[in-house]
Amino acid sequence: MTRPIFFLTDFGLADTYVGIVKAVILGIAPDARIVDLTHEIPGQDVRAGAFALLTAAPYLPADAVVLAVVDPGVGTARRPIAVQAGGRTFVGPDNGLLSWAAGRSPNPRPLPPRAGEGETETVVVLDRPQFWLPSVSRTFHGRDLFGPAAAHLARGVGIDEVGSPGGAMQTLPFPTPRRDLDGHGQIVAARGEVIHVDRYGNLITSHGVADLPTEPVVVEIAGRRIGGLVSNFQAGAGPVIALVGSAGLLEIAVPNGSAARLLGVGVGEAVTVSWGA
Amino acid sequence: MTRPIFFLTDFGLADTYVGIVKAVILGIAPDARIVDLTHEIPGQDVRAGAFALLTAAPYLPADAVVLAVVDPGVGTARRPIAVQAGGRTFVGPDNGLLSWAAGRSPNPRPLPPRAGEGETETVVVLDRPQFWLPSVSRTFHGRDLFGPAAAHLARGVGIDEVGSPGGAMQTLPFPTPRRDLDGHGQIVAARGEVIHVDRYGNLITSHGVADLPTEPVVVEIAGRRIGGLVSNFQAGAGPVIALVGSAGLLEIAVPNGSAARLLGVGVGEAVTVSWGA
Amino acid sequence: MTRPIFFLTDFGLADTYVGIVKAVILGIAPDARIVDLTHEIPGQDVRAGAFALLTAAPYLPADAVVLAVVDPGVGTARRPIAVQAGGRTFVGPDNGLLSWAAGRSPNPRPLPPRAGEGETETVVVLDRPQFWLPSVSRTFHGRDLFGPAAAHLARGVGIDEVGSPGGAMQTLPFPTPRRDLDGHGQIVAARGEVIHVDRYGNLITSHGVADLPTEPVVVEIAGRRIGGLVSNFQAGAGPVIALVGSAGLLEIAVPNGSAARLLGVGVGEAVTVSWGA
Repeated sequence: MTRPIFFLTDFGLADTYVGIVKAVILGIAPDARIVDLTHEIPGQDVRAGAFALLTAAPYLPADAVVLAVVDPGVGTARRPIAVQAGGRTFVGPDNGLLSWAAGRSPNPRPLPPRAGEGETETVVVLDRPQFWLPSVSRTFHGRDLFGPAAAHLARGVGIDEVGSPGGAMQTLPFPTPRRDLDGHGQIVAARGEVIHVDRYGNLITSHGVADLPTEPVVVEIAGRRIGGLVSNFQAGAGPVIALVGSAGLLEIAVPNGSAARLLGVGVGEAVTVSWGA
Repeated sequence: MTRPIFFLTDFGLADTYVGIVKAVILGIAPDARIVDLTHEIPGQDVRAGAFALLTAAPYLPADAVVLAVVDPGVGTARRPIAVQAGGRTFVGPDNGLLSWAAGRSPNPRPLPPRAGEGETETVVVLDRPQFWLPSVSRTFHGRDLFGPAAAHLARGVGIDEVGSPGGAMQTLPFPTPRRDLDGHGQIVAARGEVIHVDRYGNLITSHGVADLPTEPVVVEIAGRRIGGLVSNFQAGAGPVIALVGSAGLLEIAVPNGSAARLLGVGVGEAVTVSWGA
Repeated sequence: MTRPIFFLTDFGLADTYVGIVKAVILGIAPDARIVDLTHEIPGQDVRAGAFALLTAAPYLPADAVVLAVVDPGVGTARRPIAVQAGGRTFVGPDNGLLSWAAGRSPNPRPLPPRAGEGETETVVVLDRPQFWLPSVSRTFHGRDLFGPAAAHLARGVGIDEVGSPGGAMQTLPFPTPRRDLDGHGQIVAARGEVIHVDRYGNLITSHGVADLPTEPVVVEIAGRRIGGLVSNFQAGAGPVIALVGSAGLLEIAVPNGSAARLLGVGVGEAVTVSWGA
């Protein structure tokens, strides 16, 4: 059986770009199983793509091929790469997109590592034309280069075959919260930010569960103070609640409503967690 | 061959939620075939999800596993269930979502029953951790519980194995039209409502074809009277037409336009059908 | 192995229409591989659908079945057809939708022909009920007729079996640019138009690469003059650039921005290419 391919882009679904890449993959690996992670990454937003991959990575099968294309620099000198990490192989542009999900420690790790998940073992540059389409455009490497490479990997071609050793990949800085210490060196607060707003208007923050204090805790955002964490989206006294969400990150939500809309905030908004209080 | 999985949620496609559930399923059932019914159910709109399942159910293969998650009560006391109905198995929260598609008679049945379709035979509570992910969050049971259960069912595990007998499921009331009778007990009108607005702006109503009178008929909505039913979207004299749509329900449409926009109405708008006239 | 099915519609993804067609296909061909090209063709926009198919066609596997439904005339006299072209079989309404991707020469061919691509060999009318669902509605032939026919074709049924000889299909005129000649009969300009706006706001035009002059060239749109073509989306001096895009057509773009928004234009906008200048 071919390895499953997990596919993420900023192509959107209104054009045929996603379908064309899948067609190319099936032309190379006719029995490929292709699963969409999402294609609605905001256009050319590499950081949003890196975050999406990060949240998905722990749940991917151990033999997954991940095809990720958010690639504003297509056709320029940026390198096309494949990265091996814990059994999984990531394929995409070397612009930081892959660096949170397939990065080497110390790297951002809001989620506890899971069985089968791993760190970077190998980076290769996809420089071997026999694994591309015969003609490679300057504007659509998903179709002409990344998709074909992923298809060959899915069929069992090794990462060392599809490219040459590539050294380190480009990395994106993860917005790890900054910690405020008191006079005794004790943490009194952590200053993070909203890193993603989901479909429900939930605000996913850069505060990882492993770094949160035991209660009591106060979360501050947009001038509002939220006392304590609740366990699910229906709990809590106030209109705005805070909880550890499904990605292992602190989330701010409004039961049966949208925190993004109620608070009028989006990605980048400061979120401070205070200890004790 | 595994059973096919039909997947419906309110997760949207912009986040990785849908892709993550599929990744989990493929981790358990590597050769699973997963078909999206839709993931654009309005957020937390259980009734809209129930309607979508109702329209799709007659067309599902006889061995389908249906994974449906519209789950505002995730993490609360609402039960996770699986429901067996006519060969098909429905998996989701016990909040009424499954009750129109997998319900026991007398239940709403705007569509005539089809070969292979059936009524509720078994309801089980999904209370067996060996069919969940090792760690279950309080906010994402699609990933941690429903998806894994569906994957095990697709692989051939029996419904009696994945859970314990669950008694009756929660049901949603279907907006069955109310009938007006004349002095002789004859039906003179039926009062229903718009139950769904589709992509084209067609207004799908709660009037089932089996309950419509033979012509002549007058349909009233938003102060407008539509005389008679037409057979397709290009027929009819006026700008607004009425016809029996593909779900077996009365629809109101505007040829080459949007009835929702022209009439300025949406779900819940009253629609009256008058006999004779 | 069944033939892969590539699926394009204007159904959108918010309703269950797409999922229902797939369910019907899997009921007939349980191991069918179904790939979405797009379902976000603007409602009833046959020309946009024809363009989408045209861009995807060169990349489809040689044995592809293409199921395409943009069908404002469903239920009227328009014919349901299947078209054989170069190993591939296209299924859909006979309203011009298939004519650019599966058309006979001389036909619009902005892209150079590729291996496996071909011209119309056979057109059949889908008039054989044994390849439909038992009951065919007047409003959803994707579900009741086209989907089932595609499923049977995918299983290996021949095009001559699913329908009767159909003569020529309806064609849409392609907006081939008009050429201005000087007094010596030399081309001095070509007048085309924007034929598609993609997710990034790139303006894809009807000017094919094979018909563009060698440099120097000036592209004019919305009163703006763009001098010369660049090779990728990050190149070029001005805020607005012109390049040969991935479909082999002249595109107008704004690096890291939207040309459609900056110029305030959409499909149909005039685009003139001047030779020499």
